[in-house]
Amino acid sequence: MQEKIRVAIVGAAGYAGEELLRLLSRHPLADIRVITSRQNAGKDIADVFPRLSGTGLKFSMPDVREIAASCDVAFLALPHGLAHEFAEPLMQAGCVVIDISADFRLRSVEQYKKYYKVDHPAPELLKSAVYGLPERYREQIRHADLIACPGCYVTSVLLPTTAVLAAGLAKPDGIVVCSMSGVTGAGRKVDLPYIFPECNESVRAYGVAGHRHLPEMEQELAVAAGVPSLSMNFIPHLVPANRGIQSTIILNPAEKCSTEAVAQAFADAYGTERFIRILPPSKLPDTKHVTMTNMCEIGFTFDEHTGKLLLFSCIDNLTKGASGQAVQNFNIRFNLGETTGLL
Amino acid sequence: MQEKIRVAIVGAAGYAGEELLRLLSRHPLADIRVITSRQNAGKDIADVFPRLSGTGLKFSMPDVREIAASCDVAFLALPHGLAHEFAEPLMQAGCVVIDISADFRLRSVEQYKKYYKVDHPAPELLKSAVYGLPERYREQIRHADLIACPGCYVTSVLLPTTAVLAAGLAKPDGIVVCSMSGVTGAGRKVDLPYIFPECNESVRAYGVAGHRHLPEMEQELAVAAGVPSLSMNFIPHLVPANRGIQSTIILNPAEKCSTEAVAQAFADAYGTERFIRILPPSKLPDTKHVTMTNMCEIGFTFDEHTGKLLLFSCIDNLTKGASGQAVQNFNIRFNLGETTGLL
Amino acid sequence: MQEKIRVAIVGAAGYAGEELLRLLSRHPLADIRVITSRQNAGKDIADVFPRLSGTGLKFSMPDVREIAASCDVAFLALPHGLAHEFAEPLMQAGCVVIDISADFRLRSVEQYKKYYKVDHPAPELLKSAVYGLPERYREQIRHADLIACPGCYVTSVLLPTTAVLAAGLAKPDGIVVCSMSGVTGAGRKVDLPYIFPECNESVRAYGVAGHRHLPEMEQELAVAAGVPSLSMNFIPHLVPANRGIQSTIILNPAEKCSTEAVAQAFADAYGTERFIRILPPSKLPDTKHVTMTNMCEIGFTFDEHTGKLLLFSCIDNLTKGASGQAVQNFNIRFNLGETTGLL
Amino acid sequence: MQEKIRVAIVGAAGYAGEELLRLLSRHPLADIRVITSRQNAGKDIADVFPRLSGTGLKFSMPDVREIAASCDVAFLALPHGLAHEFAEPLMQAGCVVIDISADFRLRSVEQYKKYYKVDHPAPELLKSAVYGLPERYREQIRHADLIACPGCYVTSVLLPTTAVLAAGLAKPDGIVVCSMSGVTGAGRKVDLPYIFPECNESVRAYGVAGHRHLPEMEQELAVAAGVPSLSMNFIPHLVPANRGIQSTIILNPAEKCSTEAVAQAFADAYGTERFIRILPPSKLPDTKHVTMTNMCEIGFTFDEHTGKLLLFSCIDNLTKGASGQAVQNFNIRFNLGETTGLL
Repeated sequence: MQEKIRVAIVGAAGYAGEELLRLLSRHPLADIRVITSRQNAGKDIADVFPRLSGTGLKFSMPDVREIAASCDVAFLALPHGLAHEFAEPLMQAGCVVIDISADFRLRSVEQYKKYYKVDHPAPELLKSAVYGLPERYREQIRHADLIACPGCYVTSVLLPTTAVLAAGLAKPDGIVVCSMSGVTGAGRKVDLPYIFPECNESVRAYGVAGHRHLPEMEQELAVAAGVPSLSMNFIPHLVPANRGIQSTIILNPAEKCSTEAVAQAFADAYGTERFIRILPPSKLPDTKHVTMTNMCEIGFTFDEHTGKLLLFSCIDNLTKGASGQAVQNFNIRFNLGETTGLL
Repeated sequence: MQEKIRVAIVGAAGYAGEELLRLLSRHPLADIRVITSRQNAGKDIADVFPRLSGTGLKFSMPDVREIAASCDVAFLALPHGLAHEFAEPLMQAGCVVIDISADFRLRSVEQYKKYYKVDHPAPELLKSAVYGLPERYREQIRHADLIACPGCYVTSVLLPTTAVLAAGLAKPDGIVVCSMSGVTGAGRKVDLPYIFPECNESVRAYGVAGHRHLPEMEQELAVAAGVPSLSMNFIPHLVPANRGIQSTIILNPAEKCSTEAVAQAFADAYGTERFIRILPPSKLPDTKHVTMTNMCEIGFTFDEHTGKLLLFSCIDNLTKGASGQAVQNFNIRFNLGETTGLL
Repeated sequence: MQEKIRVAIVGAAGYAGEELLRLLSRHPLADIRVITSRQNAGKDIADVFPRLSGTGLKFSMPDVREIAASCDVAFLALPHGLAHEFAEPLMQAGCVVIDISADFRLRSVEQYKKYYKVDHPAPELLKSAVYGLPERYREQIRHADLIACPGCYVTSVLLPTTAVLAAGLAKPDGIVVCSMSGVTGAGRKVDLPYIFPECNESVRAYGVAGHRHLPEMEQELAVAAGVPSLSMNFIPHLVPANRGIQSTIILNPAEKCSTEAVAQAFADAYGTERFIRILPPSKLPDTKHVTMTNMCEIGFTFDEHTGKLLLFSCIDNLTKGASGQAVQNFNIRFNLGETTGLL
Repeated sequence: MQEKIRVAIVGAAGYAGEELLRLLSRHPLADIRVITSRQNAGKDIADVFPRLSGTGLKFSMPDVREIAASCDVAFLALPHGLAHEFAEPLMQAGCVVIDISADFRLRSVEQYKKYYKVDHPAPELLKSAVYGLPERYREQIRHADLIACPGCYVTSVLLPTTAVLAAGLAKPDGIVVCSMSGVTGAGRKVDLPYIFPECNESVRAYGVAGHRHLPEMEQELAVAAGVPSLSMNFIPHLVPANRGIQSTIILNPAEKCSTEAVAQAFADAYGTERFIRILPPSKLPDTKHVTMTNMCEIGFTFDEHTGKLLLFSCIDNLTKGASGQAVQNFNIRFNLGETTGLL
């Protein structure tokens, strides 16, 4: 029988933290040893997340030494700018770090500064970081000590789009993405725009001046397209739902593009992937088919009318878009069976 | 004191009909004489729309002769393909017809057939029809006997986009529109995809193979751009709200385009319009700012990063997108003061 | 032509304030002169409530002298404990005060202290205060200088229940009320329990240890029943909707109670009321029939199985439950026609 | 290693069927062999429930002989009146039947006829039926061949109330229950009152003339109280959520009742139950704490003000209220570990 991996969750009181707790508490090979929250230190989990009270866990103040001593892996679910305070010493102590924040996703410190408005706090760690999108970086993840899990919107865009770009079926220029997210995407944030009556019966675009997920999409789509860089439009919208992201992606097709070629590219790229479901050309994805799961549902249409290639994807922003993908990375890194605890 | 205009509402039991009833029942210069519904003939309005029970109205079977004899104007809120049965005889009897259906919006019977899958039932009436978008066709509406009110999505797209195209600030090629609509946009339709648990906590694209509002957008955007025709992408999405449409429009700017030029174009086009609110460049519209009103809220951003021009608009699909606009047309046609009953 | 009444709205930046602005800005006999908000002083209304931007109003710091000098009436939409600071000087200056807060609803300062945990700040004003439930206190409201508008839950309970108690058809003991409210009932409050993901897909009871609306219900139900006092159960619940209260009221019937007798009592009490709709015994009210209106919809059932009398009512918590009723009181007090601006 | 139990799900295309599929498809000891749906026979599960497409299942026409030959247990998720057609022959063939319909819940055929308006179709089977509420009938369930799973509302009421009645802490007379349910409680029903715009922003009571869950509550509460029968008020309400029932129960306490005594009674009754969470007296349950789980969360308050005992409970109507409880019964019956597949 396989020994359990000892786990810490740092910053466990937000929605991504709650989702990590939900998934890891029923994971047969994870042993949650430490959950931290500055604000809730000392509280029983039942006081913060009643639905997890069966786990009997208790929040503590984050303590690097304690985590290093007692855990094999630390999941960091912190606001950006803070992850390195834990990542660096934990890695030195031999602890694997799986970061859900944005701090190690961008390879360029200039881009980080441009979009996050601060200097990157630990540029030397960027070399170690592996981008945690298993469907594209699985082999590197197996050996990574620092895994930077992709942003939620980014995941929903990369999964359909990289496959098509990598197959040479679309051009890297002129990419337009419109995404719609449920409100947990904003985090467990207590702010006027997120109270119920301000979100219910409301649809609105936001962040169009340069959302922080934009440079991350551009970085990874450029890699997939084999170009040094690209510029694209990413327009996020907030809709009155708890969970789920729907992304609509408009691409300029390459010459050899066709409905059949796209279907084939997806089959080649994702035929054996357990967390991707490619729909037949007549169907479109729906967030309700994926919420509370680690699945990404993908649809596509070659639009004869305008000659554009349209891709559609749905994920749960907290699962495949954050904590589910983090657990998937955990499974890969510790060789536990990629779907363990996720089906 | 002005005499009241005698009004019939044909097909009054759907959501557009209900909204017409809501608006016209409090309109100081409208006298609702007849409301028809085959399915609800004989019923008191209180049995179908309790919130309107104060009006004391009763549904009857539609009867062209009765309407012609007792009314000055008939609002038609019927499914497509049926409006001409009423429009033709009523117009002959001297009754003004304000049609909310799709039957007289497209000038091309070929396009009608392509998108509605039937021959146009009354092509000879198309000559008389005026497209009922007051902000662009106000003068023609003043003298029209048949007013074809625009589709809901179409209204949300035309108001921001025609102003920019007409001012020569954007190119007519490569237009991409992503819209999100509340569920009343589907009508009062009793069908599995529209029951509550199938719509709540769900976001999905649909109709991407060629939504019926697409040719209507293309027709009117070509007029505004001064080109014979254009092709564009229109991708509608269904979101869990009752009312409201948010449209995000991505345009290729013309050379002389700039943030200031767009602001000026909107000021020129809509400076005196009572139902359009242009936001400052730092703000974006929200459906909750316009629901239950006849307003269209418009925002815009010139995206330096990609060089695209982004427009955003919000309307209430049942008000400015249907019945409110119909009442606005009614006010113009009968010279009642354009905002009467709508503020 | 009647002269317009000059109006101030003090504390206009909450949901009740917004609803007052919505109603009074289209009221033909109200002239809004002053709207105050400490937090938003200096801001255009468009920055706080974009849907009201057509009014051209601007928030100012509250200034009693300015209001007294320029207004005939002041609506107070403040948290409890603050109203007297305005009420007292404004009344002395001859200004009518219509208070939406809780400060002048309870006749007993003991009850006020028990439920609001502070001494009543102006007990001497209580004598002047008239309880602003028009359907029961219309005559007193005509001459009142200080009108204390009822709480939202209270309105939904009093309208059906007082009629039955006053007619001697139910006993004052053992009254049980379960109410469900939309989230605007909590005010525009930025607090974790009210962010979207905490309210959506959630139903919960709260305030069962003694909600502040309980003593107010007991006070007025005792008056209607002609008893010195009574004790009852009031159990509020929060449901994922913006607006609307549904109250279910379980009563012990008096001996002469019957379905017919209740129907008659309602007809007698409310036959000429414009804002009350009594449903036939086979129907039950629905919040969606009354939202955005000043109506109260009432249903009832005499339950043969247990011998209980069940009453059901629905109102919009912000309209009949707060600001609409305040405007109704304003209309009565200034003799403007009770339904002016409310239909 | 334990052999898997071979399972059939009859009537698998409704929401209870979908939930059974969700739970059993990840149950380590269940092997789903047959899923039937007259309407969807021949379809892949991916066409009806995309989120379950990973199971690779296919709907077939219901065929008793095939089920009897290939399965150890059949879950029946059919409308009332049909279950016996499967139950009788399957039981004769040695197949255990777990029925989610209402057909075998009531011991009295008179009550069945009164509330379901038809003669009971198989009164002889009632003797064999065990009421499938594990927390009260666990021992009988272990040996039952026909398990009648309780109604959703009933489960939410019985769990808190039977414990208190059985402990002699409340009187069986004058029980009042107000419950609020999400819309999946109405089934996957395509009917006007259940389309999104009719449920969203709506709260309404219904079924007050005698909901079908009422006699079932009365039957089981009488058993717990040790009285031959009792009459109570049960008032269900529909709220705009997908899942979840909140029940508020008002009881007349017995003389020895106190907060401590109730806490003790719950500890005694449910201290070792894995699917019941008793909250401390200061907290109240919330449906969002239990949705997508098999938990029942219970709160309580002894109201000093009126001397009533108030109980509050939340369940997921499709899980503990239907399919989760069915799986719990399955686990008990086949000795699989009561929580298997449910945590």
